[in-house]
Amino acid sequence: MKRTSRDIRTANRYEVLRQIIAGSPVSRQELAAATGLSLATVATLVGELLDLRMITEVGFEDSAGGRPRGLVAVDASGGALVGVDIAETYVHVELFDLALNVLARAEEEVRPGESRPERVVGQVAAAVGSVVARAGIGADRVLGVGVSVPGQVDRDTGVAAYAPNLDWHGVPLLDLLAEHLAQPLYLDNPLRACTVAELWFGAARGRGDAVVVNLGTGVGAGLALGGGLHRGVSNSAGEWGHTTLVLDGRPCHCGNHGCVETYVGAPGIMQNIRELDPGSALLHPADQTATVDALARAVAAGDPVALKVVRETARYLGAGISDLVNLLNPQVVVLSSWVASRLGEPLLDEVRAAVARHALRRPLAATEIVLSPIPTDPVSLGAATFALEGALQGAGQRSRATAARGRAVAGAPPA
Amino acid sequence: MKRTSRDIRTANRYEVLRQIIAGSPVSRQELAAATGLSLATVATLVGELLDLRMITEVGFEDSAGGRPRGLVAVDASGGALVGVDIAETYVHVELFDLALNVLARAEEEVRPGESRPERVVGQVAAAVGSVVARAGIGADRVLGVGVSVPGQVDRDTGVAAYAPNLDWHGVPLLDLLAEHLAQPLYLDNPLRACTVAELWFGAARGRGDAVVVNLGTGVGAGLALGGGLHRGVSNSAGEWGHTTLVLDGRPCHCGNHGCVETYVGAPGIMQNIRELDPGSALLHPADQTATVDALARAVAAGDPVALKVVRETARYLGAGISDLVNLLNPQVVVLSSWVASRLGEPLLDEVRAAVARHALRRPLAATEIVLSPIPTDPVSLGAATFALEGALQGAGQRSRATAARGRAVAGAPPA
Ligand SMILES: [Zn+2]
Ligand SMILES: [Zn+2]
Repeated sequence: MKRTSRDIRTANRYEVLRQIIAGSPVSRQELAAATGLSLATVATLVGELLDLRMITEVGFEDSAGGRPRGLVAVDASGGALVGVDIAETYVHVELFDLALNVLARAEEEVRPGESRPERVVGQVAAAVGSVVARAGIGADRVLGVGVSVPGQVDRDTGVAAYAPNLDWHGVPLLDLLAEHLAQPLYLDNPLRACTVAELWFGAARGRGDAVVVNLGTGVGAGLALGGGLHRGVSNSAGEWGHTTLVLDGRPCHCGNHGCVETYVGAPGIMQNIRELDPGSALLHPADQTATVDALARAVAAGDPVALKVVRETARYLGAGISDLVNLLNPQVVVLSSWVASRLGEPLLDEVRAAVARHALRRPLAATEIVLSPIPTDPVSLGAATFALEGALQGAGQRSRATAARGRAVAGAPPA
Repeated sequence: MKRTSRDIRTANRYEVLRQIIAGSPVSRQELAAATGLSLATVATLVGELLDLRMITEVGFEDSAGGRPRGLVAVDASGGALVGVDIAETYVHVELFDLALNVLARAEEEVRPGESRPERVVGQVAAAVGSVVARAGIGADRVLGVGVSVPGQVDRDTGVAAYAPNLDWHGVPLLDLLAEHLAQPLYLDNPLRACTVAELWFGAARGRGDAVVVNLGTGVGAGLALGGGLHRGVSNSAGEWGHTTLVLDGRPCHCGNHGCVETYVGAPGIMQNIRELDPGSALLHPADQTATVDALARAVAAGDPVALKVVRETARYLGAGISDLVNLLNPQVVVLSSWVASRLGEPLLDEVRAAVARHALRRPLAATEIVLSPIPTDPVSLGAATFALEGALQGAGQRSRATAARGRAVAGAPPA
């Protein structure tokens, strides 16, 4: 809970770099105005980022009557970041420059029964090697590798504590990866990766408080409060999917009943279809993706059952999102992940209407509900952002000490 | 969302004074260790608090082999703070020294139909005058007056936006009070007052993330996240009472159905009694307080219906608190307000059992559920704490500028 001066410097460094990424080229004066920091503080932080070669001086702009102002911009060639998205059926790896443009992608398939940690780690290492080679970048210019793995993770120790769909229990993932990769490594889960991606590059950027609602097979709500990720005391905040929407309702795999996830996760949506039209042609019983795709196509074609399913799903989702609005009073609620992106605007419209019926007037008036604007895989982007944050956390030190920062430092608890 | 350097200095000042109040007398070295701030930062902040006469040097302690270390303590006589709790049926005013000991109390009755703003403002002014006079303190030594009023408040403008039980709409409360009182004035509502009281002086002190569950006629959850109050983007976060526990359940005065409040607020508990035993002698139909008191006495006497009512209430409450645990992953959940304090340990035990059944294992393991340890009226204490925070926000400036800080500054948005 204690914000130390170092935590605060780190948070300010994030904010300054975020503004530079958003607005390159930009002057120190503009950065001071945008961040609320003093010009002296901005100048110090910009100096650290220049030392780190993350940004570069790119010329001057005239200021009315005064001295020309120096402009800085992200140094896209100043380093690279890797984001790794380990999912149940694939390993997806992206290499980014420091403006978070994708330089190269690689994907490896994880087949059922082939998710042994050593095997997956080998796939990750091969994919990382491949993207680095294809981008023609020296491995020493990769500032860090961020890894997302589903379920509960212990980021300080780099352990995947519990990933049921991979059948992983207490896997020391970063230790295993460190046998293959020399870069600083960072671990977290997809919910927090998507949230950080929205915070840096998406709909939560510059917003005071934001909630990122992830709609996939599982469901969660990443909380970006006060400009930073709210992790909770044991890094497990955001389990909105397992909050009660219907006391004594549908059974959930968590052991509880009536969880939000059982109504609005992909299997929950399949159940909604079954309840409205048991023999529906929309249903592909063993295939969530095919079902959601069929639903999206049927909605586009104006199919009345499909419209009813979306309306009913939105009724549940709207009630659950209203709870988040009433409890947290966020400035924006972002609908993210594959179910949200496939159902898109029709779902969004119904959700907005349902929230308007449920939420209290005052927080409702302050909240906007949007679809995620991130065009690429937000999990890889967010994982790479963890590596970016890790690199920034060491700034200021780095210019004074040449020792490479290892994972022990990278995993230090944040503000 | 932007934390400016000034916001950060203010937050650090809060933290240092909190530690001094908790541990007087204390050395700068101990404060640095407790807060994680550098000794130089602590020395600066201690200097500002000394300038403000909020703390005082109280001698030295030996340090093994080193120079004796100067000790500081709260200067109880260095100023006073007033907390005002405007409720539906009374106005309660307490005067505190800077260690937040109560120096004097006053109470005025608000009778039905007599809650016109001008009338209540007159009562508040009279009660404030009375406690100041009785404590024998110069009015100029009162650093600020914090006012809590139920419902929605706009703290920046000092307006009670909507207090249904007082029938107040858009009452410019602080402007009205400023005609009677010369001190800086601060406005907020009871939920946030109780939360700040727990954060500074109660079960949330020193905890990373805490939730203060207020159980009264209405129900709310004050969120103390990252060591500070989470207000949300329009200062209305915490409306947990109006989150859905039973979709399409009991009707709520907010227009929604199945809200948490309709099951665990005092009228909700009366409904629980009715459903379990329609003719119960526990019911005092027009009197919530008498009913809850009767319930508490019957539980103490081992009455089986009363035990069933508490168990059923705890089942609802436990499901709702599990939602908070899963979503926010707090270190502590504090049960506060009059219903919680009257039902006490028997309710707490049942709630703990219910949360253990509902919540996910990882956040559950990190969470403690406790009754509020604050022995006095937490609303007055919290209101006075808003005045204390206001006085601290101006520190550092004050030593440079002698102009009294008015409400315009006091109401500036915080970090
Ligand atoms: Zn569940
Ligand atoms: Zn309600």
